[in-house]
Amino acid sequence: MRKSAIAAVILAATAVAAQAQVKLEDQIKYRRAAYTLMSLNFGSLGAMAQDKKPFNKDEAIRNADFVAMLSTVPKQYFGEGTDKDTKAKPEIWTNRADFDAKMDKMVGEAQKLPAAVRAGDMAAFKKQVGDTGAACKACHDDYRLK
Amino acid sequence: MRKSAIAAVILAATAVAAQAQVKLEDQIKYRRAAYTLMSLNFGSLGAMAQDKKPFNKDEAIRNADFVAMLSTVPKQYFGEGTDKDTKAKPEIWTNRADFDAKMDKMVGEAQKLPAAVRAGDMAAFKKQVGDTGAACKACHDDYRLK
Repeated sequence: MRKSAIAAVILAATAVAAQAQVKLEDQIKYRRAAYTLMSLNFGSLGAMAQDKKPFNKDEAIRNADFVAMLSTVPKQYFGEGTDKDTKAKPEIWTNRADFDAKMDKMVGEAQKLPAAVRAGDMAAFKKQVGDTGAACKACHDDYRLK
Repeated sequence: MRKSAIAAVILAATAVAAQAQVKLEDQIKYRRAAYTLMSLNFGSLGAMAQDKKPFNKDEAIRNADFVAMLSTVPKQYFGEGTDKDTKAKPEIWTNRADFDAKMDKMVGEAQKLPAAVRAGDMAAFKKQVGDTGAACKACHDDYRLK
């Protein structure tokens, strides 16, 4: 087993353990809190990328760091039984591998934002914001109620 | 004016501008989301510092980084008019300088957590968790309803 595979197994086991011990309503609370602040910060990046507000590098760095960090929160808080009174579609739990893959894709794209902002190449910044937004949307389209 | 003083003025101006343009209910939503995730992560650090759960350095680093980053969120979202339907006491707005000072103290202590965890000195780690917790409590005691 390669080191990265072992790390992935440990991470997965940790996530399952974390899920098991966190109350269902708290799981919903934590993932919502993360999405709320991701939306705030990604909204700012999106506005800058679309020239709807002036690009401010310090603000963009802060936004990117927040999105990258917060993106890692939700996945572990979609435990079984957390499908009540939320916008989360039941398909998350019947189609878990696809949900997880889309979630991982989003996290992966979000991780690239901090470097993309710091590099100062506006075209690359806009592309990375676009790629991250597309990854958010892919999951929302399939797994979030309107 | 020293550079740091100029930076502080710019930060303050930015915070005021940010408040002005964020809807009142969104301000409450953002600060609550930050506190929710701070509580999750600081709770983990507190449990480790009090030997209520085993110290795990990777987890502690993640917790500390989250608390440090999230601690900077709430202050800007206590704008005038955001005193409805919350645990925020009205004294925040009548005693603003003291509230701000207590908030700044908490942010300052939280900023020291990432290095304290990484250094690997358990006594220093426990002290910094204690100092941060005390700074949280100082504000909660005076400015948060039970």
